[in-house]
Amino acid sequence: MEDGIMKNNGRICLDYSGILKKTIAEEGLSPREIKKYAPAVKKAVEKLTLRRASGSVGFADLAGDSENAREIQKYVSSVRGKYEFLVVLGIGGSALGPRALIDALAPPFYNFRSGSARHGWLKIIIADNISPEFIKGLFEVIPLTRTLFNVITKSGSTSETLSVFSIVRKKLAKRFGNDWKRRIVATTDADKGFLRDFVWKNSLKAFSIPSNVGGRFSALSSVGLFPAACAGIDIISLLEGASSVDKLCFGSNLFKNPSAMYAALNYIYYGRGRRINVFMPYHEGLATFSDWFAQLWAESLGKKENLLGKNVFVGPTPVKAKGVTDQHSQLQLYTEGPQDKLITLLSVDKFTSVKIPEIGDFVFSGRDLRELFRAEEIGTKLSLLEAHRPVLSIKMPEVNAFFLGQLILMLETATAVYGEMLGINAFNQPGVEYGKIIAKKILAGKKVESAVKGVEKYCV
Amino acid sequence: MEDGIMKNNGRICLDYSGILKKTIAEEGLSPREIKKYAPAVKKAVEKLTLRRASGSVGFADLAGDSENAREIQKYVSSVRGKYEFLVVLGIGGSALGPRALIDALAPPFYNFRSGSARHGWLKIIIADNISPEFIKGLFEVIPLTRTLFNVITKSGSTSETLSVFSIVRKKLAKRFGNDWKRRIVATTDADKGFLRDFVWKNSLKAFSIPSNVGGRFSALSSVGLFPAACAGIDIISLLEGASSVDKLCFGSNLFKNPSAMYAALNYIYYGRGRRINVFMPYHEGLATFSDWFAQLWAESLGKKENLLGKNVFVGPTPVKAKGVTDQHSQLQLYTEGPQDKLITLLSVDKFTSVKIPEIGDFVFSGRDLRELFRAEEIGTKLSLLEAHRPVLSIKMPEVNAFFLGQLILMLETATAVYGEMLGINAFNQPGVEYGKIIAKKILAGKKVESAVKGVEKYCV
Repeated sequence: MEDGIMKNNGRICLDYSGILKKTIAEEGLSPREIKKYAPAVKKAVEKLTLRRASGSVGFADLAGDSENAREIQKYVSSVRGKYEFLVVLGIGGSALGPRALIDALAPPFYNFRSGSARHGWLKIIIADNISPEFIKGLFEVIPLTRTLFNVITKSGSTSETLSVFSIVRKKLAKRFGNDWKRRIVATTDADKGFLRDFVWKNSLKAFSIPSNVGGRFSALSSVGLFPAACAGIDIISLLEGASSVDKLCFGSNLFKNPSAMYAALNYIYYGRGRRINVFMPYHEGLATFSDWFAQLWAESLGKKENLLGKNVFVGPTPVKAKGVTDQHSQLQLYTEGPQDKLITLLSVDKFTSVKIPEIGDFVFSGRDLRELFRAEEIGTKLSLLEAHRPVLSIKMPEVNAFFLGQLILMLETATAVYGEMLGINAFNQPGVEYGKIIAKKILAGKKVESAVKGVEKYCV
Repeated sequence: MEDGIMKNNGRICLDYSGILKKTIAEEGLSPREIKKYAPAVKKAVEKLTLRRASGSVGFADLAGDSENAREIQKYVSSVRGKYEFLVVLGIGGSALGPRALIDALAPPFYNFRSGSARHGWLKIIIADNISPEFIKGLFEVIPLTRTLFNVITKSGSTSETLSVFSIVRKKLAKRFGNDWKRRIVATTDADKGFLRDFVWKNSLKAFSIPSNVGGRFSALSSVGLFPAACAGIDIISLLEGASSVDKLCFGSNLFKNPSAMYAALNYIYYGRGRRINVFMPYHEGLATFSDWFAQLWAESLGKKENLLGKNVFVGPTPVKAKGVTDQHSQLQLYTEGPQDKLITLLSVDKFTSVKIPEIGDFVFSGRDLRELFRAEEIGTKLSLLEAHRPVLSIKMPEVNAFFLGQLILMLETATAVYGEMLGINAFNQPGVEYGKIIAKKILAGKKVESAVKGVEKYCV
C-alpha cells in the first residue's frame, strides 16, 4: 500500500520508515546515524545470548517447552465443560500475561457467550487487585460449584495473591469439605516458596514456572498458558510462533533483527529526550496487550543503578493507547504537544468484513468498517509524521496465536536488549521492596514515621 | 492517621504535603514558592469565571440542571426491567464519562449479575471502537430483543459512532420493522448535526448536550447521566456532589481551592521538567476513571499554539495506574526512574471489610483486606517520598455518587484553570482534524501522498 503499511504474511515486522530524516526532517534519523549503533547493539545481543546460554535468563527458552504445553492441554481437557469459570488469582505478571492472551485470542465479548458458544471452554475472570469491594463482589457473582481457581505467584509469597487465595480456600473448604483441593490449580516456582510448600502438603494440582523466568517475562510459561488453554486458545501455536522468530530476534545484525532495531531506536530517542513511549495497537483485542507491554517495559528498564552500581535513574515511561478509540482522547496531545515521545503503532493486516449500511446521506454508507478502521489508522500515522513525530510501526499479518507468540518474543527480547544497552539489570525490581516493608510494618502495628508533621495544614 | 492520610468526611480534598521541601528536599517546594503563583492563579480563575459567565464554557453549570436529570430518571423508569442491556455507541468523551461513572458506582462485576441482583437495571456495554471483530462480536452476544441502544455524539457527525449506529439501525429495522425507533435513544446537540436531524426526521427519543459543553467535559450532562441512570446510579446525588464544591472550585484563593492548587502545582512542576502526570486511584472501581481523566487532561492541555497564536507545543502526558495492582507493574519505574513525573494518588477513606482467614503460617492470616490495601497504599506513598518523588494525594471520604460528583467538578475545573495558566485554549482539539481529512481522502479513493518512498527497505 502506498501509505507505508506493507504486507508481510510470514511474520511480524518492524517498519521504521516513520523515524527517518526524509520522513520527519530534523526529528528523524538517517540510516547512517542508526548504523553507528550497530556495534553497541551487537554487543548487547551477544551479552544477552550469553546470559541465556548460562541459564540465568530463561524467557526465550519457554517457547521450546511444548511438553509442558501438552501437559496443560491434557489437564484442561479434563475440566472443559465441567466448570463454567476459571478465576485467576494473580497480580502483575501473573495477571497481565494471561489477560493479554485471552483478550487478544479468545472471541470478543468472550465472557458474555453461552457455554455452547464457548464450546465448553471456561469463562475467565482475572482478579488482580485486593480492592475490598472488588473481591467481595467477585464472590457475589461466581457460582462456587462451577468455578475453578488458578492461583499464580512466581515467588509463592505474593501478599495480595495469597490473601485472596486464603479467602477462596476457606470458602471452598466450607462448601465442599476435602474436595476443595480439586478446585484449585497452582502455578508457582517448581521447588520453593510458600505456595509450593502448600501444594505439596495438600497434594494440589500445580504447574511450574522455571526459576530463571521472572513474572513479567512469564506470559509463555504456565502462567499464561494454563488460563489461555482454559479459554480454548491454541497454546501450541502460540509457542510455535515464538520459536519461529527466536533466531531472528537473537541475530546480531541490527538491520536484520526487529528486536534489536526496536531496542536501538528506543535507546537513541531516549537519549534525545524522548522518554515517553506510546504503545498504540490498532485492534480492540490488543488493548490489554499494552498493559502487559507497559509492565515489561517499565519494570525492566526503570532503574536507579546501572550494573556498575552507579546511580543513573533511567527508564522510559510506557503509555497505553488504542486505535481508533484514543484518537478521540490522546491523539491531540501526541500531534501537538511537546516533542518528548516516540510512538509505536501496532498495525494488523487482516480484519473481518463488517458492512456499513445506508443511513441517510451519511458519508460512509455502503463502506466497510475495516476500510474505515484502516483509513483512520493511516490518517493517524500521517498526521503524526506531518507534525514531525517519530513513529514506529510493528506489523502483524493477523491477530492469531502464532503471530502473537512472535510479537511477545520480539518485545521481550527487545526489552532485554535495551536493558543491556542501558547497562542495567532488566530482570530485577529493587524499587518496590521499600513499600512492602512499610506495609508490613504498619500491619505489624509498628510506628511508621510520618512523612510530614501537621499534614492538615497542607490540605485544600 | 500518622501517615498523612487525613480523614475529611465532608468532601474531597487535596493533600499537597507530599510535594513540600520538608518532605522531599530539593525536589519539593516551600509554601512561599507556591504562594508566588497565587496572583497568576487568581487571574486564571477569574478568566475562567468570566468565560463561564459569558456562557462560552458550560461544564460547571451542568450540575445545576437537575430538571434534565429528573427527566432522564423518568424515562429510565420506563425501560427498567424491560431491557436487559443498554449498549452505548460513542467514542472519546461519549464513552469515557459513562464508563467511569458506571465502573465507579455500579456494583462490582455489574454485568455478571442477574436481573434480580441488578434490581432490573440494565447491563451496560460501551462500544467505543470500530475494530471490526469487536463490533461483529457485539452482535453475537447481545439479545437484540432485550437491548436498548444509546447513540451519543456531541457534534452529531462522529464517523465511528454513526457507522456503528447505521449497522444497529439496520439490524433493528430488519427485526422489528418500524418499532426500531423505540429501541434507540440519541444523545446529541440540541439544535444541530446529522444525528439531531435524524432524530427529528424519525421522532426518536433524545437527550441534549448543551452547545457550550465539549465531549470531554460532558460526564455530568446527559452523556454520562443517561447510561449511569440505566445502571441504577443516583444521578441526582452525583449532580448535588458537583454543586456542593462549585463555589470552592471557583474560589480565587489558591490556598482554599483544591482545583486551583492542583492546577498550580501541576503547572509549577511542568515548568520544572516533570511532564508526566501519573494518576493512580487506590480503588478498583476507579481504574477507568483514570481513562476519563487522561482524555480530559491530554486533549485539553496538549496544544501547539497559545491564545496569541504563538507555537508553544505544550502539554503534560497523563499516565493511568491503579493501586495496588500497578505496584507490581509501574511502581519500580516511578520510584527509581528519571525525575520526570508528578504522581497523584487518589485515596479513599472507607472500604468494606473482608476478612483474610488463616492459611498455614501466612503472615496476613486473620487480618482484613482493607487493612492490607491501606497499608500498601501508605507503603507506596512513603516509598515514593523516600525516593524524593513529588506526590499529590486527592482524598475521597467514600466512593459514592455524591463524592464522585465532587471529584469530577474538581478535576474539570483544575484542567480549565491549568489551561488558563498555560495561556492555551483548553476547549478545542485542532490536532485531530488532519488525520480525519486523510482518512476521508483515502475512503474517497483519492491519492494520499506516501510518507516514505520504498518503505520495504525500512522493514526489519
